Amino acid sequence: MAHIALGNELPGIRGLMEYRPETAAPLNALAEILLRDDNNSLSRGERELIGTYVSYLNDCFFCQNVHGALAGHYLGCDINQIDAIKADFMGAGELSDKMKALLTIAGSVQQGGKAVTSSQISDARSFGATDTEIHDTVLIAASFCMFNRYVDGLGTLAPSDRQFYVNRAPQRAEDGYLILR
Amino acid sequence: MAHIALGNELPGIRGLMEYRPETAAPLNALAEILLRDDNNSLSRGERELIGTYVSYLNDCFFCQNVHGALAGHYLGCDINQIDAIKADFMGAGELSDKMKALLTIAGSVQQGGKAVTSSQISDARSFGATDTEIHDTVLIAASFCMFNRYVDGLGTLAPSDRQFYVNRAPQRAEDGYLILR
Repeated sequence: MAHIALGNELPGIRGLMEYRPETAAPLNALAEILLRDDNNSLSRGERELIGTYVSYLNDCFFCQNVHGALAGHYLGCDINQIDAIKADFMGAGELSDKMKALLTIAGSVQQGGKAVTSSQISDARSFGATDTEIHDTVLIAASFCMFNRYVDGLGTLAPSDRQFYVNRAPQRAEDGYLILR
Repeated sequence: MAHIALGNELPGIRGLMEYRPETAAPLNALAEILLRDDNNSLSRGERELIGTYVSYLNDCFFCQNVHGALAGHYLGCDINQIDAIKADFMGAGELSDKMKALLTIAGSVQQGGKAVTSSQISDARSFGATDTEIHDTVLIAASFCMFNRYVDGLGTLAPSDRQFYVNRAPQRAEDGYLILR
């Protein structure tokens, strides 16, 4: 049971968003622009993977499964491949050197902003990352440090069956973050 | 110098927002509704104080000074009183028991969502906190875990003179977060 009376049974952040639609609106607008906007040189799958990895580091079951299923949907990976990437992205043969460098930056952001180093930034640049890609990586990672704390800080419910998230991913990929159902 | 070429000299998050206005819009909308909306039983000063305390815990110089100056402006405290509250809010005679309980929850959120305990929630309720106040405290604390990481993760510039922030606070209090200047 969540820490507060939400008046609904929706899982994870959905229950919080129905409870407080005034704050849900900018949160969903942020997710839509960061994770789904077409005007971005990082693919939707790459951006969802950054969010998944940070949610894994923050041990947020709901977010790492929602976004891991979406990353798998976009990247054509199953849940076991996503789990393997979360546990050891440096050893993941399917990831580019640029993505590995961006995930390294995301991991530092999860620890704290000051953990990001100039050499992590120059590594990412040496593998072709643009300034906007670095910016978006930092903001995606930072935003998941918010979403994860919001979801777990209020003790929301999360379905334990991981297939639940896999089943929902195609519809969420089609709807995006501005259509809630 | 910031980690990426922002093309402007604006301090802290302002430089990032000018660089990427597409993501600035929902971020500012979130700050406006959480910190400034009149339809809230927590005062603007109390909400700014929650953001200040979390920024202090995250060691974000820019955010703790911007929002500390705003908290001081609203609450009628000077910078030394705000510093004393950050260092020991439980010993701060000017804070209500409810605010102390909400700051305790905010401090847990800064550590991670799972650090919030049922007994922290029931303590806050016993001092009169409503569910919406608990919700907003968690989301304000979580959002500052994002803002702090965004500002420091990209290595933005922050004026070192703390009076700079005090001087700007009255104008920001008047403008809110949707008018940028």
